[in-house]
Amino acid sequence: MTRITSATTHDLRARTSAFLHGSDAHHPDPDYSAAYVVLHTDGPFEGHGMTFTIGAGNDLCCAAIDALAPLVVGRRLSDLVDDMGAFWRSVTNHSQLRWLGPDKGVMHLATAALVNAVWDLWAKTKGVPVWQLVADLEPEQVVDCIDFRYLRDEVDEHRALDMLRSARAGRDERLAHLRAHGYPAYVTSAGWLGYSEDEVRRRCRAAMADGWRSFKTKVGIDVASDRRRCEVMREELGDDCQLMADANQVWDVREAIDWTNELSAFRLRWIEEPTHPDDVLGHAAIRRGVRPVGVATGEHAANRLIFKQLLQAEAIDYCQVDACRLGGLNEVLSVLLLAAARDVPVCPHAGGIGLCEYVQHISIIDHLCVSGSLVDRTTEYADHLHEHFVHPVQVRDGAYVVPEAPGYSIEMRAESIAALTFPGGAEWR
Amino acid sequence: MTRITSATTHDLRARTSAFLHGSDAHHPDPDYSAAYVVLHTDGPFEGHGMTFTIGAGNDLCCAAIDALAPLVVGRRLSDLVDDMGAFWRSVTNHSQLRWLGPDKGVMHLATAALVNAVWDLWAKTKGVPVWQLVADLEPEQVVDCIDFRYLRDEVDEHRALDMLRSARAGRDERLAHLRAHGYPAYVTSAGWLGYSEDEVRRRCRAAMADGWRSFKTKVGIDVASDRRRCEVMREELGDDCQLMADANQVWDVREAIDWTNELSAFRLRWIEEPTHPDDVLGHAAIRRGVRPVGVATGEHAANRLIFKQLLQAEAIDYCQVDACRLGGLNEVLSVLLLAAARDVPVCPHAGGIGLCEYVQHISIIDHLCVSGSLVDRTTEYADHLHEHFVHPVQVRDGAYVVPEAPGYSIEMRAESIAALTFPGGAEWR
Repeated sequence: MTRITSATTHDLRARTSAFLHGSDAHHPDPDYSAAYVVLHTDGPFEGHGMTFTIGAGNDLCCAAIDALAPLVVGRRLSDLVDDMGAFWRSVTNHSQLRWLGPDKGVMHLATAALVNAVWDLWAKTKGVPVWQLVADLEPEQVVDCIDFRYLRDEVDEHRALDMLRSARAGRDERLAHLRAHGYPAYVTSAGWLGYSEDEVRRRCRAAMADGWRSFKTKVGIDVASDRRRCEVMREELGDDCQLMADANQVWDVREAIDWTNELSAFRLRWIEEPTHPDDVLGHAAIRRGVRPVGVATGEHAANRLIFKQLLQAEAIDYCQVDACRLGGLNEVLSVLLLAAARDVPVCPHAGGIGLCEYVQHISIIDHLCVSGSLVDRTTEYADHLHEHFVHPVQVRDGAYVVPEAPGYSIEMRAESIAALTFPGGAEWR
Repeated sequence: MTRITSATTHDLRARTSAFLHGSDAHHPDPDYSAAYVVLHTDGPFEGHGMTFTIGAGNDLCCAAIDALAPLVVGRRLSDLVDDMGAFWRSVTNHSQLRWLGPDKGVMHLATAALVNAVWDLWAKTKGVPVWQLVADLEPEQVVDCIDFRYLRDEVDEHRALDMLRSARAGRDERLAHLRAHGYPAYVTSAGWLGYSEDEVRRRCRAAMADGWRSFKTKVGIDVASDRRRCEVMREELGDDCQLMADANQVWDVREAIDWTNELSAFRLRWIEEPTHPDDVLGHAAIRRGVRPVGVATGEHAANRLIFKQLLQAEAIDYCQVDACRLGGLNEVLSVLLLAAARDVPVCPHAGGIGLCEYVQHISIIDHLCVSGSLVDRTTEYADHLHEHFVHPVQVRDGAYVVPEAPGYSIEMRAESIAALTFPGGAEWR
């Protein structure tokens, strides 16, 4: 009978801008940050959750978490999780706070932190990782976690139930395969815009030596340097490795088509975020214009409605859900179903801080409970800031190792919380 | 050589939930609120701006304004307004804060307050109302106020310039007409869900006696009571008045079509916000399904990209821009152009607190500088909370009277700022 007794938020920031990690065409100086919440209880467990930002405004997300916290503090965990869908709707459909969205921006980022902290707590009380918690639910219970309002013209409760039931076949075998081989991943750490050509070569070689076979580079500042970076990476990677490119929203629709076609010689698997993330119809036009290069987006797709339309408009080849941009695991589950219904692979966005820890669960849930497929799937990985987590992700031979510790893998070490606290922590002194 | 020396924010809230004003299917208890900013200068003028919320979270918008304020404090007004487009982009494209949107939610609401305060200050230093400031700009200067990135597949700088130049013909006559007859408006105050049948009848009669001929009711709780309210209003209004209905986002796509068709006997001019505001394709499907009833939306359309797509998908008959949901007048100008390019009438959303004061300028700008038409145009009006403004809106015979005081009409009285301050002001004691 665990009861949530209080919630504390922490404004945590890593000073990554000092080292050019993570630089892209739209975000030259990110300080990877977490608006972090701890749900304290009257029992032995705490629930931890966070949302990811890149520095300034992380305090706003903390304040938004504080504004939502009264919806969980004082509640019994069982009251929340026995009707997870109703709980989720109480957070996203608050009669006054909803005005600030709905389902987008600071409030929705904060929703992710709070909702995921409840999932973390729930899994810890069960003694299982979050992916297993979901896999252990009956299909009816999974459906009950999801708010199908606004989605029923694409996937309704009945369709979802059919999909979840069908995916039960062969699940044990799929889990055994994941435990043996991991979940396929790709690495972004080699192709940041801030790196010199030598640095890119060095990083490509190091990653290949570690078993990586799928890579991504940033593009979008100027065509010539993009061509050169792609050329350098193709030289290092050879023909058997996959190469993707990420434009981080810098282009207009026409520009995206022309620029991507300039890079076609390098056999890009996808062009990522070619234009503004809200422009569903723009992505559809770009997809038609850049074939055979695929279109990928999602890290800035505000909510399930944007994904629904990206899929309806046949605008994407890859669905890049983000564990924090969407309002927590409940909404992620709905997007997994939407994508599977259209047979579009989910390849979660990760990197930053904490995102890799989160998304390994999402990919495993997709494989075990929803799509049941690894075809054309790959989950982003970046090799930084994992040292701050109690149970950091592990990768082996270019794949995520299945996490086995209870919870959502997002709990940070007490020393890290102290050090990254902004602006008073050691990181900022 | 006005320089902005500091910015102060005020969390202002009216306790409207106590009186059932403004109740609708999604927002049963709104406390109409303003996240309000004053730009102090070294000269005789101040710039005032605000964004509108419905209570909780208004403090988050104030904090977001504070986060953006360093972009204007210490700057000369001339540096900002000499390249208004670059200034706007500096606010919406901040390398770290952009992550919290882009162009949506708390940050974008705060953007509206800050950007509109700059417009207010600019107009005051010129000694003219904001609508006249815009009308006095050369077409090239108006184009320079707008960020066309992401819009060029629909309207680019050249097209915009052509449209603005064409609209100069007959402008003096149109202004003379507006000054004589006002800008056509409709009233929402009669059909709130919280009102009894007698109250609805009383309010319809009072509004008709005041010269109103266009009315809106809220719908979406249950079909029977919606039919009854529409029936009562049609009885009172007769056949010559216009009646619109507003569902405030409560329906799924299919439900919206069926429900709206249930109300078709009452000859609705439009159904407003039939589903989630992000669902462009859903609105398009609804529009196809409810003809001859029109579809209207926009008060929750997060940004120009959503409007661009609503227009491209032929999803709306009426474009309901909101002065605060969009990131200030710069972005509003881009939406006026997008709508005019598709010949869709702009009928701004208003009500709440301050929105009527703002949108009268927007409608006049549209008529003088962009669309040049009053056909099928009507601007929302609600008759509350105007007493708090130094230059409150005036309506006469169902039309907005052209405002002539310098600025954006949004400056509130000092006593009102003190009284509405949350939680310390008289309103909350």
